[in-house]
Amino acid sequence: MKDLKGKLLSIVGKDLAEIEVALTDNLNPYLEIVSDIAKHILFAGGKRLRPLLMVLSARICGYKGGYDKIFSTIFEYLHAATLLHDDVVDGAKLRRGKPVANSIWKNSTVVLTGDFLLARGLSIAAATKKPSIIKIVAEITENMSQGEIEQLLRKGDINITEEEYRKIIWRKTAVLFQGACRISARLANTSKREENAVSSYGYNLGMAFQMIDDLLDYTLDTKALGKGVGVDLKEGKVTLPVIHALKEADLKDRLRMEAIIKNKKFSIPKFKLLIELLKEYGGISYAEQCAKDHIKQAKESLLVFKPSETRNILEYIADYTLLRKS
Amino acid sequence: MKDLKGKLLSIVGKDLAEIEVALTDNLNPYLEIVSDIAKHILFAGGKRLRPLLMVLSARICGYKGGYDKIFSTIFEYLHAATLLHDDVVDGAKLRRGKPVANSIWKNSTVVLTGDFLLARGLSIAAATKKPSIIKIVAEITENMSQGEIEQLLRKGDINITEEEYRKIIWRKTAVLFQGACRISARLANTSKREENAVSSYGYNLGMAFQMIDDLLDYTLDTKALGKGVGVDLKEGKVTLPVIHALKEADLKDRLRMEAIIKNKKFSIPKFKLLIELLKEYGGISYAEQCAKDHIKQAKESLLVFKPSETRNILEYIADYTLLRKS
Repeated sequence: MKDLKGKLLSIVGKDLAEIEVALTDNLNPYLEIVSDIAKHILFAGGKRLRPLLMVLSARICGYKGGYDKIFSTIFEYLHAATLLHDDVVDGAKLRRGKPVANSIWKNSTVVLTGDFLLARGLSIAAATKKPSIIKIVAEITENMSQGEIEQLLRKGDINITEEEYRKIIWRKTAVLFQGACRISARLANTSKREENAVSSYGYNLGMAFQMIDDLLDYTLDTKALGKGVGVDLKEGKVTLPVIHALKEADLKDRLRMEAIIKNKKFSIPKFKLLIELLKEYGGISYAEQCAKDHIKQAKESLLVFKPSETRNILEYIADYTLLRKS
Repeated sequence: MKDLKGKLLSIVGKDLAEIEVALTDNLNPYLEIVSDIAKHILFAGGKRLRPLLMVLSARICGYKGGYDKIFSTIFEYLHAATLLHDDVVDGAKLRRGKPVANSIWKNSTVVLTGDFLLARGLSIAAATKKPSIIKIVAEITENMSQGEIEQLLRKGDINITEEEYRKIIWRKTAVLFQGACRISARLANTSKREENAVSSYGYNLGMAFQMIDDLLDYTLDTKALGKGVGVDLKEGKVTLPVIHALKEADLKDRLRMEAIIKNKKFSIPKFKLLIELLKEYGGISYAEQCAKDHIKQAKESLLVFKPSETRNILEYIADYTLLRKS
């Protein structure tokens, strides 16, 4: 695991360094406070996964235009915008172990900086001069905002189905991964076959990424996420391990699980009991298997491309997504 | 005044009706709650000035493409998005006499619906398939968010200069008017000369619109705005009448005015005294004159076009902007 991460970082180090520079260079606000707030969220230890995926997808599709790093900022700016808006509305105090922006600046200024980042992402998309690319970027934002809203609406709803869960995480997370990859293919003017291949890679990686993220709520035993274990559940987020276990459980255990979930101030022993029940009914292993299946599909999508270092890196990223613990 | 409004509405009635239909038809969310919130703000008695300007500018530039109403929704969606975000962050209870969206729905859902509307505006812009148009729309949003932030930052700052005030209202308001007009010229593929003419019209109209809006805080004697008199000042918004009067006043009166402005819980007699001082030092008449000058320039810009009913309507709108009392 550690080896994989180290290996990955050494290979993509130059790309990541260039992405960091592009994130600063293309922000371009005229107000210092916008720059401060945007940088607070942008340079808070994010993994740059979304821009990196875009850069690597562009490379595997043969893009030679030299603007990949600039265009890759779109996906980090959109992501940062949603984080700023999330933090304002959900009342959390920390993000990645740092105080949230709205604990330092006013809510109003933070919301408006989020709007600026959304607009900035779209301005940079417009600079591609390709309407089909711009359309994808705008639609990503439409989907993300609605995915977030649907998740809010379904908070605490134990009747959510696996299919509904999958749609929500697609809109909320995978759409951005998928879009980053698809756009890179469009920039490269590659074949539809290659475009669909990287798009499928991004989609499956994004789905697995969110499934693993949701699993961490039950499998982490540290505060490595910058948030406590069981936090999603306390917020009422009913995710795949729970959905599956509730479906599989007998009536008695289903009621026991529901009682814990509905009482948002559950104790640690109750939460441990829930985890035992999730394990007993295969909720944890099922969600892990679903994530694995998506990673398998992500890697298979890449077989359209001939073997290369870039293909290897994309495969490593897929493997790493599955193994990540933070 | 009433005659002018009636005349205007009778001439543009068909356009306005088509804009109403387009605003519903192009919203296109998949979540009902997004539709409900968006419609709450979109159909709350807005004047549709921004889409109407776009439609009329397109017409005077000879646009025949038939998509003017669809593209005009961009400007109402962006405007509505900023209103939703404003209401969440500024804590007002009413907007146009109706409860604000975030008093009915959760802040989080309202912020995200604002994001959806921003994205929707940009998606529709992408449908023009003209990158230069899309770029203008994205830049409008960058400017609006930063204009709002700058206004927030300068709250209560009595040292704001007229030049700074003008830049803020340009970003916050006039950029959208100007953009709506400029884009219509681009859609029509008209000459640069005509494009600059409608753009100048939009810019000047937007500047006058905001100056008049700011003046209403001091000149209204009813609650026709859906907000009380002196509300902007209580929020710390230092606008042109005050900026000018502070500059012109002798030291004693300047200090009297500053004392009233700084005490945000000023009494009605104190506010009346302030208005007297604003009048004495020409703050009200100066701001009125500035608005008039912009309207004069707006109308002069139109002289590039030969006389037509559309030119007449744009002139009426300019005159109406100056006379509006709500």
